[in-house]
Amino acid sequence: MNVPPAIRWDDGRLSLLDQRRLPHEVAYLDIRTLADAEHAIATLAVRGAPALGIAAAYALAMTMSDTTPPGESAAGFRARLAGCAERLCRTRPTAVNLAWAAERLRRRAECEADAAALVDEAAAIHAETERVCRGIGRHGESLIAPGSTVLTHCNAGALAVSGLGTATAPLYLKHRAGVAFRVLVDETRPLLQGARLTAWELARAGIDVTLICDNMAASFMARGEVDLVLVGTDRVVANGDVVNKIGTLNLAVLCRHFGVPFYVACPSSTFDPATPEGAAVVIEQRDPEEVLGASAARVKAANPAFDVTPAALVTGIISEHGIARAPLAETLPALMAGPAPR
Amino acid sequence: MNVPPAIRWDDGRLSLLDQRRLPHEVAYLDIRTLADAEHAIATLAVRGAPALGIAAAYALAMTMSDTTPPGESAAGFRARLAGCAERLCRTRPTAVNLAWAAERLRRRAECEADAAALVDEAAAIHAETERVCRGIGRHGESLIAPGSTVLTHCNAGALAVSGLGTATAPLYLKHRAGVAFRVLVDETRPLLQGARLTAWELARAGIDVTLICDNMAASFMARGEVDLVLVGTDRVVANGDVVNKIGTLNLAVLCRHFGVPFYVACPSSTFDPATPEGAAVVIEQRDPEEVLGASAARVKAANPAFDVTPAALVTGIISEHGIARAPLAETLPALMAGPAPR
Repeated sequence: MNVPPAIRWDDGRLSLLDQRRLPHEVAYLDIRTLADAEHAIATLAVRGAPALGIAAAYALAMTMSDTTPPGESAAGFRARLAGCAERLCRTRPTAVNLAWAAERLRRRAECEADAAALVDEAAAIHAETERVCRGIGRHGESLIAPGSTVLTHCNAGALAVSGLGTATAPLYLKHRAGVAFRVLVDETRPLLQGARLTAWELARAGIDVTLICDNMAASFMARGEVDLVLVGTDRVVANGDVVNKIGTLNLAVLCRHFGVPFYVACPSSTFDPATPEGAAVVIEQRDPEEVLGASAARVKAANPAFDVTPAALVTGIISEHGIARAPLAETLPALMAGPAPR
Repeated sequence: MNVPPAIRWDDGRLSLLDQRRLPHEVAYLDIRTLADAEHAIATLAVRGAPALGIAAAYALAMTMSDTTPPGESAAGFRARLAGCAERLCRTRPTAVNLAWAAERLRRRAECEADAAALVDEAAAIHAETERVCRGIGRHGESLIAPGSTVLTHCNAGALAVSGLGTATAPLYLKHRAGVAFRVLVDETRPLLQGARLTAWELARAGIDVTLICDNMAASFMARGEVDLVLVGTDRVVANGDVVNKIGTLNLAVLCRHFGVPFYVACPSSTFDPATPEGAAVVIEQRDPEEVLGASAARVKAANPAFDVTPAALVTGIISEHGIARAPLAETLPALMAGPAPR
């Protein structure tokens, strides 16, 4: 699809697409040491929950391969892995996928305390993620009618995930099938992931992309120019409430008002059945400086990074197993457990 | 209120607050010639419909004073005025207030073909605008409860209008009365008038201002943190549809969903009874470059500068004569004609 992969693993060498330099430059960072990986993650050269998990898994496996002392015991190997994992997880404490990937490797090392097994596990995580994206794409592509317009927000694309991305997977598959459609991409203030990343990767793939400001969606919907809104999510909780990038709730309310279907795409691993509803999720408040850029001294700013879209505003949730529709509190657990409900 | 005036007229000398340099620098441009005025208007040193009308009136009066040849006939005076007005109106062809101000001066010159009368007319336009703002402020301030939060969009403030501004007039009067409240200001992409101008002028006046991105309003409303949305408008048409900065419709839909009152403030001169409904208004499409800043080569952008909010989503319209509420198609003409309906 002509989008450079976010993560490359080539016979023991890890390199990461430097997303800080997009869209102006396509450059890869060679990750030769654990310190290189820590720096790349901390400075957002690689970002997006699934992509972070894959990158962390490869970085750990590579480090364990490169630094195994001769004659190391299994206990020594596991202790060294735990130390490396702890360093990596400290880089972004709220990114649960780092800890998740480290845990996958830890469990593998319980049975097989050798570096080759960890490389194998990292590659498995990578392959699974790409398979899940294809599943989301297959289930979601039927939602995209020929000649229609899909609006998306933030980046739940190849760059954030690997493979086809999540919210972008149905778009990439439909485009590959030769169906013409149009995508409106919200620029997604304050960090502009839509403008810098999603618009870029969809355009690279040859999809008809138009960038809009976040405040323009209503205007397009009022003119009947949006047929579907499709976004990713950071977390779907038990009742179907969707936690995603700030601005998602805004779109969901507009969809309800203008009668536009609002769909959320996510791997089943994003489902959090232990949290009963969105109100229980603590929203990350980021540095107001990200918002204040253009403004004056005495002005302050708010910068909630996410919002919660109530399940009642969600038309459907697409996972690799199928699509769950209302009432989500009943349909979601079955969907996420897979296989797809009929 | 500690906000520097957008337009200063001091004994025949015109100077304009250079809004391109806000909020980082408060600097005035001396306008000594018609060419200076043309340049200031074309490059947006002065902007906002009412402010443009006042600046144009003073610039024309000043030019006519400074360049009257000895013994000029009344016909010669009027022809020279027409020529100057034409030059000024060419600077921003869609700004109807330029033509409106020129027409006011032309009519005055029909009776009194001398420069002093034009200066008098320009000062009258200026004083009328400030009086209208005070009227909007007096009628609107009752909407602002102590301790409440008001959200506004774009700049319908002192900088765009002169005096108290329109949407900001109730805020300034309530603040002067010693009532504490909070204002959320949308940054208003793509040109950031909220971030650069509204947040700045309200903060200068000592009002508690928090800047937010345009996509955050829903999140604040969902938490019950917005009590009132108050915006200005470029044009209100016969049925009450409101044409205003892109993003206004977005807020109106959110207000309806979350049960937040949505009010529009405007001088009665902004009412356009000749246009039956918003759909008849041609929306200015601005340069996509304004949106594309951060994005990539092959990406295109849309940039509608305004949207249309249907009257059904408007709780009330505040003019200098009072407040009109639903059904606006019936209440608006009476309100705009003044005096205030009971």
